[in-house]
Amino acid sequence: MKLVIGDKFNSSWSMRPWVLLKHFGIPFDETLIRLGQPDTKSKILDVSPSGKVPCLITDAGDSVWESLAIVETIAEQHPEHAMWPRDAAARARARSISAEMHAGFADLRQNMPMEITTHAPGTGATPGALANIARIEAIWAECLAASGGPFLFGEFGIADAMFAPVVMRFNTYAPELSATSLEYAKRVTALPAVAAWIEGAREEAR
Amino acid sequence: MKLVIGDKFNSSWSMRPWVLLKHFGIPFDETLIRLGQPDTKSKILDVSPSGKVPCLITDAGDSVWESLAIVETIAEQHPEHAMWPRDAAARARARSISAEMHAGFADLRQNMPMEITTHAPGTGATPGALANIARIEAIWAECLAASGGPFLFGEFGIADAMFAPVVMRFNTYAPELSATSLEYAKRVTALPAVAAWIEGAREEAR
Ligand SMILES: N[C@@H](CCC(=O)N[C@@H](CS)C(=O)NCC(=O)O)C(=O)O
Ligand SMILES: N[C@@H](CCC(=O)N[C@@H](CS)C(=O)NCC(=O)O)C(=O)O
Repeated sequence: MKLVIGDKFNSSWSMRPWVLLKHFGIPFDETLIRLGQPDTKSKILDVSPSGKVPCLITDAGDSVWESLAIVETIAEQHPEHAMWPRDAAARARARSISAEMHAGFADLRQNMPMEITTHAPGTGATPGALANIARIEAIWAECLAASGGPFLFGEFGIADAMFAPVVMRFNTYAPELSATSLEYAKRVTALPAVAAWIEGAREEAR
Repeated sequence: MKLVIGDKFNSSWSMRPWVLLKHFGIPFDETLIRLGQPDTKSKILDVSPSGKVPCLITDAGDSVWESLAIVETIAEQHPEHAMWPRDAAARARARSISAEMHAGFADLRQNMPMEITTHAPGTGATPGALANIARIEAIWAECLAASGGPFLFGEFGIADAMFAPVVMRFNTYAPELSATSLEYAKRVTALPAVAAWIEGAREEAR
């Protein structure tokens, strides 16, 4: 199994399935395509019909693209891991917030792009981005209260992986956050799989 | 089970789970919230924490929001129906194109909004919208060739439901399309569940 990703510095979508696979100890090969180069598009199109990364290449040679489709496919292949919550109602809620992340929060994504090694507190805090942040804080607070933490649905899973790049943005732009959000962000940042991605981004910068 | 939707005339996201449930004969109650009214937002927020429709209320009273999360949840509850393809590789591809629709094609969505009873050939054909259409045509052509049709993965399923609002747009704005796309669009339009949604949109206009 091979995961094709973009730069660890800023490929927020790539981070999601990568962190999920690492966290659950699922072995995979990794191919990194540098974004923003003259040949980026053609390199991506060689593997991913949407022209975007991430893209998973299965052992049978099939391409699976879109972060959410990739994580659903991985979850299905590994029923031994509770990547989605085992409880049906919690699973439906986890899917709702993951899909909301997948399709939404455009203002946050545009104004506070993931740039892991950048430190730029206060930048990008447009009204739209702040509204997105308020909604994300509400999601986190509700999930953590319902599950008791430490992650959104108890143990780390797909929903946390979907929001991990948001945590990276919060680390970079440092918007005002509730104590609950700050502590959750700290736990996500410290997770070994997330720390490994961050270290990868640091190495790219060297 | 209750599905909360927006107007049939233009709530493209609502159309997806509604058509899926109808097509598979799964009984559900329907609540329609008129969009664009002064009290729209508060009415939606009463049931859907994202402030958006569609929203599914399960028999246990839980809210499931985001069209893609709703259809995944319905598929899981009804393993007797092949809403996703039974073959794992086809299923992964169906999830990829459904997620691509869920998160993408912003230009098409913006410039050719779903307005079922409108007839406006030629409108909205911006370069971005046309590029989206080219990608959609490529998806359809590849899926139909691989499955043999009549729908994207053989029989009608979630992937077709996800693209049904695109078919509505094509009916309204009539962009230039391949014969393959036109015939697929015709089959989707004629599907009883889709025809019932269209009829609902016509009734709203009366
Ligand atoms: N909705 C997609 C988004 C993927 C995406 O936008 N990927 C960016 C990098 S993070 C990309 O491939 N950009 C390269 C390009 O557009 O040339 C997903 O969930 O995977
Ligand atoms: N990504 C969401 C999109 C939902 C969405 O944008 N719904 C629109 C109607 S089609 C809405 O609720 N608009 C009402 C509002 O924003 O006040 C989904 O897949 O369900």
